[in-house]
Amino acid sequence: MVKDKARGAAREHVVETDVAVLGAGLAGLVAARELQRAGLRTVVLEARERVGGRLLNHQLGDGKTIEMGGQWIGPTQDRVAALAKELGLATFPTHDRGDYLLERGRRINRYRGRAPRFGPALSADLAQLEARLNRLFDRVHPDAPWDTPGAERLDAQTLWSWTRGATFTRGAREFIELVSEGVFAAQPQDLSLLHFLFYVRAAGGLEMLESTTGGAQQDRVVGGSQMIAQRLADELGDAVILGAPARTISRDDSGVTILADGATVRANHVIVAVPLALAGRIAYEPALPPQRDGLTQRMPMGAVIKCQAIFDEPFWRAEGQTGQAASTRGPVRIVYDNSPPDGSPGVLLAFLEGGPARRLGAWAPEDRRAAVLDCLTRLFGPRAASPRDYVELDWQRERWSGGCYGGYLQPGGWTTYGPALRAPVGRIHWAGAETAERWCGYMDGAIRSAERAVGEVIGTENPRAAVAGGVQA
Amino acid sequence: MVKDKARGAAREHVVETDVAVLGAGLAGLVAARELQRAGLRTVVLEARERVGGRLLNHQLGDGKTIEMGGQWIGPTQDRVAALAKELGLATFPTHDRGDYLLERGRRINRYRGRAPRFGPALSADLAQLEARLNRLFDRVHPDAPWDTPGAERLDAQTLWSWTRGATFTRGAREFIELVSEGVFAAQPQDLSLLHFLFYVRAAGGLEMLESTTGGAQQDRVVGGSQMIAQRLADELGDAVILGAPARTISRDDSGVTILADGATVRANHVIVAVPLALAGRIAYEPALPPQRDGLTQRMPMGAVIKCQAIFDEPFWRAEGQTGQAASTRGPVRIVYDNSPPDGSPGVLLAFLEGGPARRLGAWAPEDRRAAVLDCLTRLFGPRAASPRDYVELDWQRERWSGGCYGGYLQPGGWTTYGPALRAPVGRIHWAGAETAERWCGYMDGAIRSAERAVGEVIGTENPRAAVAGGVQA
Repeated sequence: MVKDKARGAAREHVVETDVAVLGAGLAGLVAARELQRAGLRTVVLEARERVGGRLLNHQLGDGKTIEMGGQWIGPTQDRVAALAKELGLATFPTHDRGDYLLERGRRINRYRGRAPRFGPALSADLAQLEARLNRLFDRVHPDAPWDTPGAERLDAQTLWSWTRGATFTRGAREFIELVSEGVFAAQPQDLSLLHFLFYVRAAGGLEMLESTTGGAQQDRVVGGSQMIAQRLADELGDAVILGAPARTISRDDSGVTILADGATVRANHVIVAVPLALAGRIAYEPALPPQRDGLTQRMPMGAVIKCQAIFDEPFWRAEGQTGQAASTRGPVRIVYDNSPPDGSPGVLLAFLEGGPARRLGAWAPEDRRAAVLDCLTRLFGPRAASPRDYVELDWQRERWSGGCYGGYLQPGGWTTYGPALRAPVGRIHWAGAETAERWCGYMDGAIRSAERAVGEVIGTENPRAAVAGGVQA
Repeated sequence: MVKDKARGAAREHVVETDVAVLGAGLAGLVAARELQRAGLRTVVLEARERVGGRLLNHQLGDGKTIEMGGQWIGPTQDRVAALAKELGLATFPTHDRGDYLLERGRRINRYRGRAPRFGPALSADLAQLEARLNRLFDRVHPDAPWDTPGAERLDAQTLWSWTRGATFTRGAREFIELVSEGVFAAQPQDLSLLHFLFYVRAAGGLEMLESTTGGAQQDRVVGGSQMIAQRLADELGDAVILGAPARTISRDDSGVTILADGATVRANHVIVAVPLALAGRIAYEPALPPQRDGLTQRMPMGAVIKCQAIFDEPFWRAEGQTGQAASTRGPVRIVYDNSPPDGSPGVLLAFLEGGPARRLGAWAPEDRRAAVLDCLTRLFGPRAASPRDYVELDWQRERWSGGCYGGYLQPGGWTTYGPALRAPVGRIHWAGAETAERWCGYMDGAIRSAERAVGEVIGTENPRAAVAGGVQA
C-alpha cells in the first residue's frame, strides 16, 4: 500500500493504468485482484487511511480481535467462504449454545429454537404473515426487481404500510420492526416493500437472514473479518493508494481520468466500488445520465451504532445462555455474543439500529453507554452493568461509508431508477455490496459484485472473454 | 458579474469577504443583496455560466420571451411580488379566459369553473377526499412538520398508500396522481404523505396550488421570470462569480473557506443556496453532522421536461379556450397557454412530469416531440400538430439543478431528518426554495428562505440585530 508519501507527489503526475478501482472495501479489492489476475494493470484509490471499508477490526490486546463492522459468514455465502479459505483465514462458529432472550415490553422470555412459545393469536398471526411473505419472496426477480409481477404496487408502499394491512397483532408488527432494524438498520417506514422483498429474497429468505447456526450470523473469521481485506491489500501492494478520495471522474472515448486527493489516474475503465450515496457525490464529466444520477439521489444508507461491552469472561455462557437477545423495548434491539474464539474476554455486542441509532447518535457518549448497559443489564443481569471496557462505532459518522449497513431504496426507487444500479455508463462500471443480486449488502454480495464488474471490463476489452466469463447483458 | 476571466486567476489568490453565498438562483441572489444592504461584503459563487438557477428565459425573437423554468406568481406570494415590483418588472395575467379541457381515458370534457361536472360517484368521492385532506392540512405544522400531531404515521406512508385507503373511485386516485405530477413532478409513490401535506399547506391549500386566476399560476413576469435574477445580479455586479461550482466547504472557529472551480473564498459565514441533493455533493471539512448528511441522502429532486410548441397565433383562444388542459391519459398531463403578453406568437406549454418525464427523457428528441404534439393534437385539434417551432428543456439533465421542480422528502424523512433542513451547522447556513416554510418550492419561498438565512447571519454577527430582525430560533 502507498500511504501519505504518495500524496502531493502523485498529484504532480498522472498514473497510467488499465483499470482504476475506487474504494478499497471488499468489492474494490476483489475487483483489483481479479483484474490483475487477468493481466490488467490496476490502481485502487481509497479515501480512508486504511482498507476494508465497512470491515474494521478492533484490537482488544493480547492478540484478541473483535469487529466494529461487518463480520459474519453464513451458509450459501460461497464466495466469501471461498475467499477466506484461499487467503488462509479460518472461521469459527458464533457462540450459539444455550438459551435466547426475547424482551417484549416488560417481559423477558428465555427460550430455545427459533422463537419463544407465543400466545395463540400472535402465533397464528406470525404464521400467516410468514406465509404471505414467502409468497411475495417467491415472486421477486432478484436480478431485476423492477420486472417482478406487480412490481409497481410493491414499490409504491413502505414496509410499514404493507405490514399494517398484513398483520392483526402488535406483536407481528414488532417482529417486522425488529427485522427491519436488524437487517437494514432502518425503520419499516424507510423501506420500499419491494426493496425489502428483494433483499430478503437475495439472501434466501427471512430465516436465513435471522439465524445464527444455519443462517447469516453463523460463522466469524479468526482474527477478524477485516483480515480478508488486509490480506487482499497485501497481495495488491503498491496498487492500493490510501488517503485518496476520488473527486472527479472524466470520461471520453478512449478512457477515464480520475482526479483524487493526491493522485490523478488515467485508465481505460473505472470500477466504482463505493456505496451509491457516496458515488453520487463524485463529480462526473460529462454528467451521469438522469436515471443513474436520480438513483444516487434515492439510495440512502442505514444508521447503526455498533456497541460492545467487554467482560473478563462470557458469564452468560455459564448460565446457559447464548448471549443472543432481541428486544422490542430497546433502544438496543439485538445482542450477540461476540467473544473471540477462545471465549476470552467475554464480549456482548449490542446494536443500535435505525431510529434508535439516529436518536442516540446525538447523545453524549457517556449517556449512550449508560443506555446500552442498562439494556444489557435488563437482559443479562447485574454483571452486565460493569464491563471492563466498552467500545462503540457510530457508522453514521463514517464519512467514507455514509452510514451502514448499506443503501436501501425508498418507495418508487426500484421501478423507476433500479435498472441504473448495475448498468455501466460508458467506461464506468459499478460494484459494491448494494449492486449484488445475491446476498445484497453482505460481504458475499460485495465479492459477487466485483466479479460481475470485472467481467464487464474484460468483456469490453475482449468480447470473446465476456462470453466465456458469462458476463450479464 | 465576473465571467471566465476570473477563473484560474481567482484560484491563485483567496478572495476574502464577510459572507459567501453558493448558488445564484433566486435565494442566493436575494441573500447576497440583503447582506450587502446590511453592510456586509458578499461573494456569490455560481456553478453555471448564467444566473437564475431554475429560472431560465428563452428568446423567441422580436423581443418575445418564454420561460423554460419557474415562471408564475400567485396571490399571497407577497415576497416575490414585492421584489418584481421593486426591480421595475411588470406582471401580466396568465391567459385564463374560456374553457378548460380534461381528458379522461378517451373522453375529453370541455368545461368552465374549477372542474367539469362529474358523475355522482366521482363527485361524492372527490368531495369527501377534499374534506379529508383539508382536515389533515389543518393539522400540519408548516414550520416544523415533525411536530405535527401524528407526524410519524403521516410520514410512514406514501401518498399512494394513503390515497388507496382514502378514495373509492379510480377518478379520485387519478386526481391525486395529476396533483402529484403537476405540483411535485413526482408520483404519489415517491412522496411521504407528510411531505405532501406540508407542501400543500405551505402554499395555502390545494385550490391555491391548482388555480390560475386566484392561484399559483395567476401571473407572469413581462420579459420572463429570469429577469428577476438578472436584475438582482446586475445590482450585485462583480460580487457574482459564474462558472465556479463549489467543491469543498471547510469551517473552523473563525470562518469558512470555500474551494470552487476558479475561485477560493474565505468568509465569516457561508449561505448554501442550492438544492439539498446538490448541497450533499459538496465536500465538507469537517464532515456534516449525521442528521444533516442523512437529509442530503433523502431529498431527491423531481423530474420534469418542459415542452413548448410555438404557433403563429394562439388559435385556441379564438375557439373560446383557455389553452389549459389536464389529462389522465398523458404522457402530457398539464397544458397552459404560455404566449407572451400580446398573445403573439401563440405558445402551448406541455409538461412531462414524474413518471412520464423519466420515461420520455430517455427517448430520442424527435420521438418525444411527436408524443407531445400528439397529446396537444388530441386536446386542441389538428392545428396543434404543426407548430412553427418547438422547444423543450429536460431538467433531469441540468446537473446544477439535479432535477425540478424541487426536492421532496420520502417516507420517514421529515420525522427523522427534517429538523436538519434549516438548522445552521456552525457558520454554514442553508437557503433555497426547499427550506421555506411558506411557498416551499416556489420563487416566493426561495426569497423567504434567503431572508431567514440572512437574519441568521446578521444575528450571529450582531445578536441585537437578530432580535430586531425576528430571527427564528
